[in-house]
Amino acid sequence: MSDKKIKKLEEPCSLIEILNIIGGKWSMSIIYVLFSGKKRFSEIERSIPNINTRMLVKELKNMVENEIVTREVFATVPPTVEYSLTPKGKKLEPIINELHKWGLEFIY
Amino acid sequence: MSDKKIKKLEEPCSLIEILNIIGGKWSMSIIYVLFSGKKRFSEIERSIPNINTRMLVKELKNMVENEIVTREVFATVPPTVEYSLTPKGKKLEPIINELHKWGLEFIY
Repeated sequence: MSDKKIKKLEEPCSLIEILNIIGGKWSMSIIYVLFSGKKRFSEIERSIPNINTRMLVKELKNMVENEIVTREVFATVPPTVEYSLTPKGKKLEPIINELHKWGLEFIY
Repeated sequence: MSDKKIKKLEEPCSLIEILNIIGGKWSMSIIYVLFSGKKRFSEIERSIPNINTRMLVKELKNMVENEIVTREVFATVPPTVEYSLTPKGKKLEPIINELHKWGLEFIY
């Protein structure tokens, strides 16, 4: 099927790669929750209605690999794990806020 | 499982609803392709690498229902169908461009 598709545009292609990393309702929602500061896994989970644990684990792992989120482990008993945004992740704040404003204007 | 989740935040909740509509790599990529003007189904399909026909049909239907995209049918033989952004959809242009710029800065 993809063989048939010729003359692909470069621009949406790179956008697709970007959206592979931060597209999707879960990753942007996680980033949104982390704007207010570092959070434990359980705090993020409670903040996002309907996300399931497996999906949250997967999304956080993906965002740590892409250096959008930092994962810190503290040697408490039991160990404490905290997630926060990297500078790269924080740069998404105005963009996600604008998206939110767009939605509030047009959907509600 | 969702019964256990108490004290959900209102803010990410509305963001999730917004991202249900325009979140995901395909819908934003479709909107991006339509920034340059109205397109036929086949033109959109060719512009987005790896999207499959069924997914594109579904995404366009969703965006027409949410008044982000307009679908016009012209009585040619065979009928011509064109998709374009509504004013609401066009308002996403600066936001998606910013997201794109963020990605170009940090991913490439």
